[in-house]
Amino acid sequence: MLRVAIVGASGYIGGELLRLLHGHPRVTVVAATSDRLAGRRVDGPHPNLRGHTDLCFVGHDTLENTEFDVLFLAAPHRETMGRMAEFLKLARTVIDLSGDFRLRDPEVYASYYGVAHAAPHLIPEFTAGLPEWHRARLTTSDRIAVPGCMATAGILAVRPLALEGLIEGTVRVDARTGSSGSGVSGGAAGAHAERSGALRVFAPSGHRHEAEIAQATDRTVRMTATGVEAVRGVQVLCQVKLASGVSEKEVRSAFRAAYGNEPFVRVIAQRQGLYRLPEPKILTGSNFCDVGFAVSADDGTAVLIGALDNLVKGGAGGAVQCMNVRFGWPERTGLEFFGLHPN
Amino acid sequence: MLRVAIVGASGYIGGELLRLLHGHPRVTVVAATSDRLAGRRVDGPHPNLRGHTDLCFVGHDTLENTEFDVLFLAAPHRETMGRMAEFLKLARTVIDLSGDFRLRDPEVYASYYGVAHAAPHLIPEFTAGLPEWHRARLTTSDRIAVPGCMATAGILAVRPLALEGLIEGTVRVDARTGSSGSGVSGGAAGAHAERSGALRVFAPSGHRHEAEIAQATDRTVRMTATGVEAVRGVQVLCQVKLASGVSEKEVRSAFRAAYGNEPFVRVIAQRQGLYRLPEPKILTGSNFCDVGFAVSADDGTAVLIGALDNLVKGGAGGAVQCMNVRFGWPERTGLEFFGLHPN
Amino acid sequence: MLRVAIVGASGYIGGELLRLLHGHPRVTVVAATSDRLAGRRVDGPHPNLRGHTDLCFVGHDTLENTEFDVLFLAAPHRETMGRMAEFLKLARTVIDLSGDFRLRDPEVYASYYGVAHAAPHLIPEFTAGLPEWHRARLTTSDRIAVPGCMATAGILAVRPLALEGLIEGTVRVDARTGSSGSGVSGGAAGAHAERSGALRVFAPSGHRHEAEIAQATDRTVRMTATGVEAVRGVQVLCQVKLASGVSEKEVRSAFRAAYGNEPFVRVIAQRQGLYRLPEPKILTGSNFCDVGFAVSADDGTAVLIGALDNLVKGGAGGAVQCMNVRFGWPERTGLEFFGLHPN
Amino acid sequence: MLRVAIVGASGYIGGELLRLLHGHPRVTVVAATSDRLAGRRVDGPHPNLRGHTDLCFVGHDTLENTEFDVLFLAAPHRETMGRMAEFLKLARTVIDLSGDFRLRDPEVYASYYGVAHAAPHLIPEFTAGLPEWHRARLTTSDRIAVPGCMATAGILAVRPLALEGLIEGTVRVDARTGSSGSGVSGGAAGAHAERSGALRVFAPSGHRHEAEIAQATDRTVRMTATGVEAVRGVQVLCQVKLASGVSEKEVRSAFRAAYGNEPFVRVIAQRQGLYRLPEPKILTGSNFCDVGFAVSADDGTAVLIGALDNLVKGGAGGAVQCMNVRFGWPERTGLEFFGLHPN
Repeated sequence: MLRVAIVGASGYIGGELLRLLHGHPRVTVVAATSDRLAGRRVDGPHPNLRGHTDLCFVGHDTLENTEFDVLFLAAPHRETMGRMAEFLKLARTVIDLSGDFRLRDPEVYASYYGVAHAAPHLIPEFTAGLPEWHRARLTTSDRIAVPGCMATAGILAVRPLALEGLIEGTVRVDARTGSSGSGVSGGAAGAHAERSGALRVFAPSGHRHEAEIAQATDRTVRMTATGVEAVRGVQVLCQVKLASGVSEKEVRSAFRAAYGNEPFVRVIAQRQGLYRLPEPKILTGSNFCDVGFAVSADDGTAVLIGALDNLVKGGAGGAVQCMNVRFGWPERTGLEFFGLHPN
Repeated sequence: MLRVAIVGASGYIGGELLRLLHGHPRVTVVAATSDRLAGRRVDGPHPNLRGHTDLCFVGHDTLENTEFDVLFLAAPHRETMGRMAEFLKLARTVIDLSGDFRLRDPEVYASYYGVAHAAPHLIPEFTAGLPEWHRARLTTSDRIAVPGCMATAGILAVRPLALEGLIEGTVRVDARTGSSGSGVSGGAAGAHAERSGALRVFAPSGHRHEAEIAQATDRTVRMTATGVEAVRGVQVLCQVKLASGVSEKEVRSAFRAAYGNEPFVRVIAQRQGLYRLPEPKILTGSNFCDVGFAVSADDGTAVLIGALDNLVKGGAGGAVQCMNVRFGWPERTGLEFFGLHPN
Repeated sequence: MLRVAIVGASGYIGGELLRLLHGHPRVTVVAATSDRLAGRRVDGPHPNLRGHTDLCFVGHDTLENTEFDVLFLAAPHRETMGRMAEFLKLARTVIDLSGDFRLRDPEVYASYYGVAHAAPHLIPEFTAGLPEWHRARLTTSDRIAVPGCMATAGILAVRPLALEGLIEGTVRVDARTGSSGSGVSGGAAGAHAERSGALRVFAPSGHRHEAEIAQATDRTVRMTATGVEAVRGVQVLCQVKLASGVSEKEVRSAFRAAYGNEPFVRVIAQRQGLYRLPEPKILTGSNFCDVGFAVSADDGTAVLIGALDNLVKGGAGGAVQCMNVRFGWPERTGLEFFGLHPN
Repeated sequence: MLRVAIVGASGYIGGELLRLLHGHPRVTVVAATSDRLAGRRVDGPHPNLRGHTDLCFVGHDTLENTEFDVLFLAAPHRETMGRMAEFLKLARTVIDLSGDFRLRDPEVYASYYGVAHAAPHLIPEFTAGLPEWHRARLTTSDRIAVPGCMATAGILAVRPLALEGLIEGTVRVDARTGSSGSGVSGGAAGAHAERSGALRVFAPSGHRHEAEIAQATDRTVRMTATGVEAVRGVQVLCQVKLASGVSEKEVRSAFRAAYGNEPFVRVIAQRQGLYRLPEPKILTGSNFCDVGFAVSADDGTAVLIGALDNLVKGGAGGAVQCMNVRFGWPERTGLEFFGLHPN
């Protein structure tokens, strides 16, 4: 059994890590930090864990005296980078879920996060935590930066065509997200009466995940982000121009080639049926990212669609999948949940 | 045109008062107070008012220098009673939407609100703001206490049978309510991710509105309150024992007699159909309270049901209706909205 | 009082016409047809009308013997065109809510609706029922074709810039819609358990409203349509390329110029705030279409946003507004409802 | 590996059986019947199964030529009883999810289901499929009748006190249920626009599950059933009178004694916190039934609350749990999912 610790375990991503890691047969959770809730049971803020654990939160400074092999970081953006040097001393393997080590270019980081990067020299040490595209490197990497939720969906939807040169021009992404993406402290904007039934274009441009998709696809990306009525769930609609002469068959082949053997990516592009294109509602709780497409033959464009649960494949599940890859365990270990229908 | 002012205009009840009063042909809103938002436009927190008004919030202390005829109070429970003497100096007619002057017995108030009443001598001056049962007195009353949202539904559902002696024993009320009832500052409990899809028994007993229903029906009332997935809407299910020999026909007659001519109460008790019993979802935005019943002949019990929009008939709309009655205007003035289906 | 009749009054648009026309001080509803429900009360399928009317549905063939001035058609697409000649004999003024007379080019109709147009010679007689752009002609038109719900939002969002030559290239529209747009008989796809929480890309391309927006803006339009969790509500996100050198100020001016005096279009484009861009959730029941925009200075693109209630401004309300214009009544008559917040 | 077959596999309960049984390490699904969909892939109507199985539906008559050990019946009420003799020939162990063999008294059945029982002689052969109360008998039973969803919640909430004689008088149950309980063919009542946001008292009295709770608790039970906004989820609120002198401590002890060692029942009765009483929203997908209570010391009453996922613990999960008990496997096998928060 490997020993794992979680920094920032009181938030939604932290709770999801606790859920997945408690159900994981190869690890034991030895510490879950929350300075605010130190001493309190983890099943207080995470009531789904009742009956599964008696673990209590510990203050951050107890980590120094705790031995563990893997450290999951679910701390806030901007705050994580300043503490990374310290974190790296604590464990051999560090899996970061913040946004601080995803972008390889510190200047891009500065322009999207509004502050200079505090530890640019550490960025190159991190591998992108997307096994579908970086599996080989992840088997030996001890610094892993898990991509953002909307970025994961966008990258998985766009990269197969981008890498094969099947698309050209700007990629226009419309991302829709549930309320859990805003975290525990959603504030006034997150109050139920305001957020319920919303179709809130909270980022008509400049969302940070746009930069991640651009980096991973080597294309100009323009993204809008809309909050929709859902707790969990992300869906991206990506409008692309196909390169001259590219057929629907080639598009399908590229997706099949990229993901045919992937344990957590399904290609969903049917001609009919209620669920003929990816939808997050049947992915809640699961680690799947469904990707699909619809080609408009008449004008050579296509819509690429990705869907996932932002707290699982777009967060804690993706991180656990990376750990599985890193330690050579079967990739589905602890991530077997199928998703629900209806839901 | 009568001049009206609103204390506590930044909250949800305040916003609903602004909506209804701006659409009311007999009044003009001369002041809307919010110490926190003084100087800001009212259509900031109440975006549905955009294009209808250029009004800005004013600080509370400006009221002294403003002339108006009617003062609506949408200030918090417990806080209102201490300031009532002051409020009464400001306007001839005061319509209070807090809970502080609804209960006639200060000891009952103390036991339900957890504090001694600060102005018990003023309680007798207030008339219950329920035109269906106190219309005559309301035509001359200048101190009106509008009942609580769940209380309004419960009283309208139970009182026709209670007054006629058609029921006996304890009345058991199960009240369900949307999130807007918790007000603007719902706090952590009101965060969308926590509140969405909730079936939260937040008051298994002892809810304050229980005391109002008991007072108005002269019966022992036991009430549970559950938060359900909705922004607006209250529904009460009241289980009662019919007095010996009372038939369904008598029940129906009692409801018809009580509400046959009421502008805002509809008796809904059909044998079939999707909407054969009262449901708040088709009442959103309207001032209706639908009441209905289902009699179990075999054991002499009945379920009495009431439904309304907590911010309208259960709050601001009820208050405006009282004003209409007080000033002799047609009771539907400014309250004509039918409600929506589907919705 | 003008006498009005409704064909197809049992559906959701029909019900909304009944709601609005019963609240309209200048008209009286003399007939509401439904062959299926003939003889039944209209407040059966439209329970929000209880207490407001005793009207019953009549069979279609009774219309011949009824006198009325205005005929509203809420019959299905494809079926309406074949019966239009007959309808035109029944009333002086015909307001059609089907899709059959919106597209001026029968070939475009054929390509989007999959059948040849049955009455192409009648198409030129119809005026587009969008007062914001055709008010003058509507004052004298007796054949009015009300645009589709998503088309109304899209046209109102895009046309100000398109007409002024401020945009170039293809307009990419992402349209989101609630479940009521599918009508009463939503079928298996509309079952709550399947439709709840959906993010269903039901038309990745080729939606019929695309053709309407293209026709009204004289631009190439590519539209995706997604069903979202809502009963009512449409929102369109339109990604456009600004013509060279066009500034945000010019964009704002164009919107102000187009809609500054409109009774039912509000320009919502604030720098901050929860509702800084248009959202349908605060428009439910109202006849407003809110339009807004966000300009990306760095790459000369903009997102144009429109939101409305598909059954009101995107259907029955738009039709009533046209009637008001046609008969010279104040345009807001019968359409005064503000919309609700929170909701 | 045991071989299992499912009759009626195209419905929601059938789909949930497929989900759970495909993830179960001790069984293999050899047949899933649906006469309507014979030959079609099971992941068509159950899209969450994509990637997990290539199974296709078979017609019912193929079962005769298939060998299997356990037969799960997810066929409709009333239809199942007439075919039970035939079903019992097909497999050694039959687990029935219909309502036909739950009630021990055929006359009670007739009064609640409106038809005479077609196979009353078979009723005594069935054991109630509730391991918490019948575990010993289930280890040897080959005819198992899984209780209804609301009945499971109600029985688990009420029986600990009823059996210990801690309550007296009538038990009043208010049951709330999501839309999936109505099955795939919800009809017009199940259309999203009608069902969304509903608080539909579809059974003010006489619901069939009432009889099950009465039978299992030996008390008079009066139940109302309300459809609420949710796809999955059942919650029951049971109002009981405590026997004279019974304290909260005794109530707690009774629950602890009954369920302290149960793998799938958690006693949730905290003094504070958001989730201090059972709520279905954190149980979606899990096999837990959370039970809790709130005692009103002043009048000797209590509210007993049960919550579960109607398709899992209230259906397919309960059935799988029974199978685990029957075959001596660890009871949590295949049912490990924790439930999600937030959700």
